[in-house]
Amino acid sequence: MVRLVASTQALLASTAAAALFPDCQNGPLANNTVCDTTASVSARAQALVAALTNEEKFNLTGNTSPGVPRLGLPSYQWWQEALHGVASSPGVTFAASGNYSHATSFPQPILMGAAFDDALINAVATVVSTEARAFNNANRSGLDFWTPNINPYKDPRWGRGQETPGEDTFHLKSYVASLIDGLQGGKNPQTLKLVATCKHFVAYDEESWHGTLRYEFDAQVTTQDLSEYYMQPFQTCARDAKVASIMCSYNALNGIPTCADQYILQDVLRDHWNWTAAENYVTSDCDSIESAYGYHHYAPTREQVVADSLVAGTELNCGTYYQSHLPSAFSQGLFNQSTIDQAVTRLYSALIRLGYFNPASTTPYRSLSFADVATPDAGALALKAAEEGIVLLKNDGILPLSLRTDRNTTIALIGGWANASQTMQGNYFGIAPYLHSPLYAVQQLPNVRAIYGGTGGDPTTDGWDEAYNAALSADIIIYADGTTTSDAEEGLDRNTINWSGAKVDLVSWLSELGKPLIVLSMGDQLDSAPFLSNQNVSAILWGGYPGQDGGTALVNILTGKTAPAGRLPVTQYPANYVNEVSMLDMNLRPNDTSGNPGRTYKWYDNATLPFGYGMHYTNFSARFTNMSSESYNIASLVSSCDNKTYPYLDLCPFAHQVAINITNTGTVSSDYVALLFVSGQHGPQPYPLKQLVGYERLFSIGAGASQTANLNITLGSLARFDEQGNAVLYPGDYSLLVDVPTQATWNFTLTGSEVVLDHWPQPRNR
Amino acid sequence: MVRLVASTQALLASTAAAALFPDCQNGPLANNTVCDTTASVSARAQALVAALTNEEKFNLTGNTSPGVPRLGLPSYQWWQEALHGVASSPGVTFAASGNYSHATSFPQPILMGAAFDDALINAVATVVSTEARAFNNANRSGLDFWTPNINPYKDPRWGRGQETPGEDTFHLKSYVASLIDGLQGGKNPQTLKLVATCKHFVAYDEESWHGTLRYEFDAQVTTQDLSEYYMQPFQTCARDAKVASIMCSYNALNGIPTCADQYILQDVLRDHWNWTAAENYVTSDCDSIESAYGYHHYAPTREQVVADSLVAGTELNCGTYYQSHLPSAFSQGLFNQSTIDQAVTRLYSALIRLGYFNPASTTPYRSLSFADVATPDAGALALKAAEEGIVLLKNDGILPLSLRTDRNTTIALIGGWANASQTMQGNYFGIAPYLHSPLYAVQQLPNVRAIYGGTGGDPTTDGWDEAYNAALSADIIIYADGTTTSDAEEGLDRNTINWSGAKVDLVSWLSELGKPLIVLSMGDQLDSAPFLSNQNVSAILWGGYPGQDGGTALVNILTGKTAPAGRLPVTQYPANYVNEVSMLDMNLRPNDTSGNPGRTYKWYDNATLPFGYGMHYTNFSARFTNMSSESYNIASLVSSCDNKTYPYLDLCPFAHQVAINITNTGTVSSDYVALLFVSGQHGPQPYPLKQLVGYERLFSIGAGASQTANLNITLGSLARFDEQGNAVLYPGDYSLLVDVPTQATWNFTLTGSEVVLDHWPQPRNR
Repeated sequence: MVRLVASTQALLASTAAAALFPDCQNGPLANNTVCDTTASVSARAQALVAALTNEEKFNLTGNTSPGVPRLGLPSYQWWQEALHGVASSPGVTFAASGNYSHATSFPQPILMGAAFDDALINAVATVVSTEARAFNNANRSGLDFWTPNINPYKDPRWGRGQETPGEDTFHLKSYVASLIDGLQGGKNPQTLKLVATCKHFVAYDEESWHGTLRYEFDAQVTTQDLSEYYMQPFQTCARDAKVASIMCSYNALNGIPTCADQYILQDVLRDHWNWTAAENYVTSDCDSIESAYGYHHYAPTREQVVADSLVAGTELNCGTYYQSHLPSAFSQGLFNQSTIDQAVTRLYSALIRLGYFNPASTTPYRSLSFADVATPDAGALALKAAEEGIVLLKNDGILPLSLRTDRNTTIALIGGWANASQTMQGNYFGIAPYLHSPLYAVQQLPNVRAIYGGTGGDPTTDGWDEAYNAALSADIIIYADGTTTSDAEEGLDRNTINWSGAKVDLVSWLSELGKPLIVLSMGDQLDSAPFLSNQNVSAILWGGYPGQDGGTALVNILTGKTAPAGRLPVTQYPANYVNEVSMLDMNLRPNDTSGNPGRTYKWYDNATLPFGYGMHYTNFSARFTNMSSESYNIASLVSSCDNKTYPYLDLCPFAHQVAINITNTGTVSSDYVALLFVSGQHGPQPYPLKQLVGYERLFSIGAGASQTANLNITLGSLARFDEQGNAVLYPGDYSLLVDVPTQATWNFTLTGSEVVLDHWPQPRNR
Repeated sequence: MVRLVASTQALLASTAAAALFPDCQNGPLANNTVCDTTASVSARAQALVAALTNEEKFNLTGNTSPGVPRLGLPSYQWWQEALHGVASSPGVTFAASGNYSHATSFPQPILMGAAFDDALINAVATVVSTEARAFNNANRSGLDFWTPNINPYKDPRWGRGQETPGEDTFHLKSYVASLIDGLQGGKNPQTLKLVATCKHFVAYDEESWHGTLRYEFDAQVTTQDLSEYYMQPFQTCARDAKVASIMCSYNALNGIPTCADQYILQDVLRDHWNWTAAENYVTSDCDSIESAYGYHHYAPTREQVVADSLVAGTELNCGTYYQSHLPSAFSQGLFNQSTIDQAVTRLYSALIRLGYFNPASTTPYRSLSFADVATPDAGALALKAAEEGIVLLKNDGILPLSLRTDRNTTIALIGGWANASQTMQGNYFGIAPYLHSPLYAVQQLPNVRAIYGGTGGDPTTDGWDEAYNAALSADIIIYADGTTTSDAEEGLDRNTINWSGAKVDLVSWLSELGKPLIVLSMGDQLDSAPFLSNQNVSAILWGGYPGQDGGTALVNILTGKTAPAGRLPVTQYPANYVNEVSMLDMNLRPNDTSGNPGRTYKWYDNATLPFGYGMHYTNFSARFTNMSSESYNIASLVSSCDNKTYPYLDLCPFAHQVAINITNTGTVSSDYVALLFVSGQHGPQPYPLKQLVGYERLFSIGAGASQTANLNITLGSLARFDEQGNAVLYPGDYSLLVDVPTQATWNFTLTGSEVVLDHWPQPRNR
């Protein structure tokens, strides 16, 4: 989304002055059923729509909605962003100073994903929705938010991978369910706190790579991969977490632009996943209806494209194509009256569910104010989120730092991230209350003298002499660098995933000084091989985009105030991986013909550092404590599932909880993320190397102490997907594996006949 | 050059305060021979160097030179830029306001190349050098300028193609000779006006494409292509135009980083081309010595890389690698005392030749002041340069516009270039005295109402409604768009050369209004096919990067105040060309195995619009007037050449001038560019389609009038290159062709035995 963020200020100006809510007391709609809080959502929305002319309805289908002045229906901006905090976007207005001049800015999802802590995600999302409601009450924001980005991060080059929690679908599903609950105020709340929007539906994982723009990319995806991987997070969003809105994407899927694709929008989303609440609507990505015409050339006329999109079930157009071309499309008879009525009804049902037509007294959200924004607790949560995500990749024992108290320790900070401020926010960010850089955080340490050695970028123009001289006079060297949104972000994929020759050269030069040298690898993953193999590089931390208090989080880890326990939420690929597979190749499985070596830890085994990797300041041992049976009958597993509690078979629990006892065998108290994988020979070949089926973050396990992770795995997480995309529980051999690398294994078999847990709807004939 | 332009302000600050010239009257050097204006340049430089310690010498080898305070030798910044006017760069300081707050900003070379007017180029370069000297006299600039970029523009994706005059070597050679004459103040002036620097030596044509950075690119070039194409402009620079300085490049050539390559720096440049004046020095590109280590991994130690570069003949390092590592390399015995002495001697010889150690009275340049900067004449020249370059690509008769005088004509201007200001300068620009956009220029027209319809970028965020509404109310629609430095510039190659789907969609939508619609295609070439085939697009002009008065130039062409006569200086390739050949493939000739369809008009025949293409507001006919003989003996041609006048055989004139009579058969007075090509079956196969051998711009040929172009072609321009890179005059069939498409042909044969005009030095054994 957002082709040109900079220009959104103009849109914003046009909506900020509008009335906040319709006047249901004295306005023209006061006697319309839409204002009757005792009526059903559908009845209320239908009554509103019945009062509209077609011209008015067409005007309401764009993100910048003019409302209907004659009815006192306010203009409305549907486009708000809150990827990791209330964010600058067309519908969000920050004040120049004072109240509402900032909001809490959490780490980017990729770092929060590394925490593997669903409760943390729910807490973060709750803060975000509270702050968003406060902004709304001040007429500084709408209530529809186009977050989360939940496309799985399957290729390390993807510019928007930082916006996601990672590459694994089980992880994404757990994460996003917690997130939506926090954003929307529960699963079926009386009043929606916000409308969340899962995007980008579907198979949207490419920005601009080797000349192919996302607007024109036609993703060729097998039904197997589609169901098993690309659709999974959206299934959780729509079917299980009851997200109110879904965004269709720029790309085409197997030849059809997603916003015009009845198969995915009707057959899968609405029919198969029962995404049929009154308020459920689909929005296009910004200009993606235009892209279907101008880039995909999907239909011969603009009218046909807007009609096909509306008919397929895209109710809202971020853009002006609907507003410009639906009228003539209707004149040409390309869609029915009921189609436009249904679209507008769905859109206003969502606003009704948000309490838009209700008295303020009907929900406590309307009382939230700036006192609820950027609170000290929210700030502490932002710090905690960053600390929990940071991953220790290498440590020769230098960490945690032992700083002397009898004299000052001099620490040199060098690199593009050393004094990072807004950079720490990645993309889709708001105005943070503060931005504490690594340099700032080191400067706060007692008995430490911090020297800034510059960005260390290019020898001439950025001054390696400054870096070298800083390092010369330091006791400890910290090199903080990596990628920024200049390397990878919306609209910009990477071509390379290596540390540049200049950066390796600089670190190598600094490392020859024989002093402790710690690399903070920031932003997206880069192949750490040159630093892992350099024995003079003492330690490596990965810190992603750590948000408003990122520097503090990093320094708290460095000093041991907080022990690191994050895990890589993505595979760290070797640099040459980008030469082995086209970014446009959507296949997950290895393919000898195309040369695709496989994607994600499930199918690729040559990582520099694998998914789930993360070191600690202590050591942990793991063992299964309650596994006894070594064989289970599939029919029994299925029949014992209560179909009222579990309306979908894939959600059924496995025979029993898996209990894993974790003992801290070292000397430092630390969190520990229990990761549980399954592997084994079952289902269609090829078999994945393993797949994640459960995780839990345990907190503050003391030296010598133990805690138990109780993991509820589902039948669905044990399932495999056949070529038709059906989720099937297969008989065969299974192994449960704890941790990366594996620390404990427990084997069992499933017996009997295979059972289809989810019959996947097949693509239409085309 | 310039990895990070933004950071150059810091460097600048450190040098601006230094003394301007050494004090040869009362300073410590007053009695050193360097201050003796009667001594030879070499003797003076050697005397200075003899007074230096080695430590001082090493410090003098970086672009940011500290000078030698104990000797009163001022610090000096070697890095100035003036690609198309005195430009912001480390050595150039513009004042915040008033005097020296601006300098004339001419069009980018790619547009000036399209003028095919060598006298224009000499006039422009003379203004640039005059303004640079004025800045120098105010201690706002040094005297060494790292311009021109004369790598031939062989691939349409190249980000720096805009910095060059085009793709053809004959054209580049003629252009650059005129340019250097203007910059340096003649071919062998008493005092060099400036030091010009031909860059980037050699085969540097790639920025960052599909993950390959210019710093690590190893160009694989055949000796044939190297001699015939990549080396040709540099041969003119060094051998014929006597440029004072050459810059080696980031890339490697056949495995060896160019700055460390004795073959090209010694065997070709100095030995073969006799580039041996005392002041001739080679500078590295910025950080390209570091790149040889950090990216090319050319040698195992930094010391070895700096030593190899110094020994190969790179005297100056833009960067700090020499300053940091030459001392230890010398300690290790990796180069001799004479090597560093020679390097510093050459550098200071250049300054001596600039009059750096001379009294101000010895040259009028020292009297130039701000009164000589941005004069009205210079402004008129900048406008003329733009007008001469603009190329008419399509015209259904709408141009020149017939504006009514009885009522206002409403003109809508739409697109990213409609209100362009700094964008018109491209890259490597200074602060212009004014920047007249197309919108501004239309607003100056009498009886015209201009409406700005926005940038027309993306439907939502940039507002197509604004564009459409402007077009609706206009009599004439002008769509001004194309590429900018956001699409292609230093460090950034293009992946695509098509108009984006959204832009084609917008133009198509606007064209359906049935009004005159003129496309101004700006920046680099884009495949015009969608607009050529759209009959509702009335006309297309290509305007490149037209500089400070670009809008006026475009509007003068549109209204017919000036008739267009520019010619495409590059091939306009079809969009799919980028899928047919890798940007890293340096081969010019077609190759069935690799799929390379050939490069430049010499080897590629499927252009959307060919090199040399350009329409007029009138029609011209062309005929040869003095061609009689149809056969020439090669031995006679060679033996009749006066080797005192023509020290190199390739410069020998052909038997006689070629006279081409041009008649304006239409009704509008117009310039006309006579382009003369040769084709035919002679020399090694494959034969090129044709090659340029002469051009001349004729001015203001009245309706019905004739003028004659007298073209002096050389034996070298008739030569072909064999696989060893020798330039050979071959017997065989020749055709001279006038214009594109061909309007007149004259055939002749060369008889006798082939003669080698230039014996190319062969690569060293590696």
